[in-house]
Amino acid sequence: MAKQRVLTGITTTGTPHLGNYVGAIRPAIAAAQDAATDSFLFLADYHALIKCQDPQQVRQSSREIAATWLALGLDTQQSVFYRQSDVPEITELTWILNCNAAKGLMNRAHAYKAAVQANEEGGEDPDFGVTMGLFSYPVLMAADILMFNAQKIPVGKDQIQHVEMARDIAQRFNHNFADVFTLPEAVVDEDVAVLQGLDGRKMSKSYNNTIPLFLTEKQLKKAINKIRTNLLEPGEPKDPDDSTVFQVWSAFADKAQTEAMRTAFAEGIAWGEAKKQLFELVNAELESARGEYQRLMDDPAYIESVLKAGAERARETSVPLMKKVREAVGIAAMA
Amino acid sequence: MAKQRVLTGITTTGTPHLGNYVGAIRPAIAAAQDAATDSFLFLADYHALIKCQDPQQVRQSSREIAATWLALGLDTQQSVFYRQSDVPEITELTWILNCNAAKGLMNRAHAYKAAVQANEEGGEDPDFGVTMGLFSYPVLMAADILMFNAQKIPVGKDQIQHVEMARDIAQRFNHNFADVFTLPEAVVDEDVAVLQGLDGRKMSKSYNNTIPLFLTEKQLKKAINKIRTNLLEPGEPKDPDDSTVFQVWSAFADKAQTEAMRTAFAEGIAWGEAKKQLFELVNAELESARGEYQRLMDDPAYIESVLKAGAERARETSVPLMKKVREAVGIAAMA
Repeated sequence: MAKQRVLTGITTTGTPHLGNYVGAIRPAIAAAQDAATDSFLFLADYHALIKCQDPQQVRQSSREIAATWLALGLDTQQSVFYRQSDVPEITELTWILNCNAAKGLMNRAHAYKAAVQANEEGGEDPDFGVTMGLFSYPVLMAADILMFNAQKIPVGKDQIQHVEMARDIAQRFNHNFADVFTLPEAVVDEDVAVLQGLDGRKMSKSYNNTIPLFLTEKQLKKAINKIRTNLLEPGEPKDPDDSTVFQVWSAFADKAQTEAMRTAFAEGIAWGEAKKQLFELVNAELESARGEYQRLMDDPAYIESVLKAGAERARETSVPLMKKVREAVGIAAMA
Repeated sequence: MAKQRVLTGITTTGTPHLGNYVGAIRPAIAAAQDAATDSFLFLADYHALIKCQDPQQVRQSSREIAATWLALGLDTQQSVFYRQSDVPEITELTWILNCNAAKGLMNRAHAYKAAVQANEEGGEDPDFGVTMGLFSYPVLMAADILMFNAQKIPVGKDQIQHVEMARDIAQRFNHNFADVFTLPEAVVDEDVAVLQGLDGRKMSKSYNNTIPLFLTEKQLKKAINKIRTNLLEPGEPKDPDDSTVFQVWSAFADKAQTEAMRTAFAEGIAWGEAKKQLFELVNAELESARGEYQRLMDDPAYIESVLKAGAERARETSVPLMKKVREAVGIAAMA
C-alpha cells in the first residue's frame, strides 16, 4: 500500500506548552513513526508574521519549537522537518494560486469574518486592522498543502474550512490547466486530548494560563502548584471529573494510574499530595527530553543544519512540482 | 551624482504593437541609454497570470516581448533586463508585504473598484469573477518596486495609485521594523505619445485596433491601408488634427517631416498617397529591427540565456535586500 502523506504546520509565535505537547506534538511524533505515513512537518514562520510583528519573538519561538520537536525524538529521517521560509517555491505557488482563488472564498473565511464582526461590534470600519496577510492566509495554507501533494491534514475543527478551501483551489487549477494537484482531506481526531490550563479553561497562550513544556524541575513544580483547585480539605472526597489536576494527570498517566488516582480522589487525597504526584508523573515523562532541549537551545547552528537538511528534502518535492505548475500556466523557461 | 534607479514592468499578455512602441518601448530604451539612470526592465509574467489563463498566450507573449526589446537595441549591459518569475525573492517579499498592507488599501484600488462596479451594474455579486490575484496585485507590484529600491516608476495616470500604495506599504514596513525600503515615486510623462489605432480610438489590444510592431513589410502596408479615413477626395484639403494617419505620422516623423505633411494635408494629399508615405516612414524605422526580431524569435535559447543573465544581475540586488527583510521580521537563519 502506498504511504499516506500527512502534513502539519506549527506557527512560530509562542513557547510550546503542555497543551501543545499532549494535543499536537506527542501524537504527531507518534504518527511520524508509523511506517504507513509519510510525514511533512514544518515551522510556519510566514504564518507567524500575520499575527506577530515582534521579530525577537518569531526568532525565539522558531528556535524553541524546533528544539522541542527534536528533543522529543522526532525522527527526521522518517519524516521531513523543515522551515516554511526555506522553501521559496511556497510563495511562488501562493501567487499562482491567488490567480486561481476566488476572492469570494476568502470573504467567507472564519478568521476574517470574526475580525470583521469584532470591528463592527466595536463601531469600526469592517476591515480595520485587517492586513492582506490575515485576509489571504488561506491561500498560503493552500500552497503549504498542495506544494507537497499532501493527502491528510490533521486539524482542529476550526481549520477544516481552510483545508476545504485548499481543495477548492486545487480543483479549480486542475480544471483550468492540468491535473497537477492532489486533493487534500482534513482529518479531525476527536480523541486528541484538550488540556486544561491553570485556570481550568483550555490551556492556551491567549488565556495566559499555560504551563510551558520545558520549565526547569523547580519551575514545573511551582507551575503545577498554581493549578486552581477548590477548598476541600484532605480527607474530603473530591470530584476527579471537575478537577484540572485530574485532567492533566489523565493526559500523562496510563490506564491503571488513572484509575488509581480516581480512587485516591474518592478517598480524599490532599490537593498538595495530588499535585506532588502530578509533578512527578509529568516530570518523569519530560525529564530526559528537557536536558536534550537545553543542549539544543544552546546549539542553534545544529538546529539550523537540521532545518536546512529538511528543506533540501522538502525541495526534492517542491522543485519538480513547481516546474509542472510553471509549465501548466505558461511561465516556464523558453528553452 | 548618484544614478536614479528607474523600474518598468511589461505584462506578458499580448503582442507588442506600434502604440506600445511609441508610448513605452522607444522612450524606455532611450532612457536606459541615459548614463544618469539605472534601468530595471522586466517581463511581468506573474502579472500576466492575473488576466490570462491561456498558457500558450503567456508563453508566446513573453517570447515576443523579449525579442522586441532586444531587437530594438535595448542595452542589456547598461540596464538590467529580467523575467519576474526568475527572481524568487519577489513572491517572498510579496508575502511579507501582505502582512504589512492594510486590506482597506486594496479595497480602494481602481482596478478592483471597477470590477465591483461592473458586477453591481450587471446585478452580480460584487466580487463575482474577482480572483485574489486581481485583488492583491498592488501588493505584488509593491514587491516588484521595493525589491530593487527603485526610485522612479514611469507610469500612466491610471497607475499612479499603485505606486502610492507601494510607498504606503514601504513606509509602514520601515516604521514597524527597520528602514529597509526606498520610497518610490511615480513619474508621469505628459509628453509620451498615445497612438491612435485603426479605428481612431487609442491603439489598444482591448479595442482590437492595433498594428503589431513586427509585421512583414507586406502586412504592415496592408495594416496601414486599413486606418480609417474620411471620404475626402484627392485635391480636397484635409484636417491633419482629425486624422489618425497624420497622428501616427507625427509619432514617427521629425519636426520638418511633420510640418511637410501638415502642408501636404492642407494641399489635399490623397489618402492613398499619405498612407504610402506613412508606410515608408514607419517601415524605415523598423526595417533593421524586424530582421533581428525574426532571428531572435527563431532562437529561444538565446533569449532564455539573456533573461537568465539578467535575472542573475537582478538577484545581486534582491538576494541581499531580502536578507535584510528577513532579519528585520525575524525569519532569518538561526546561525
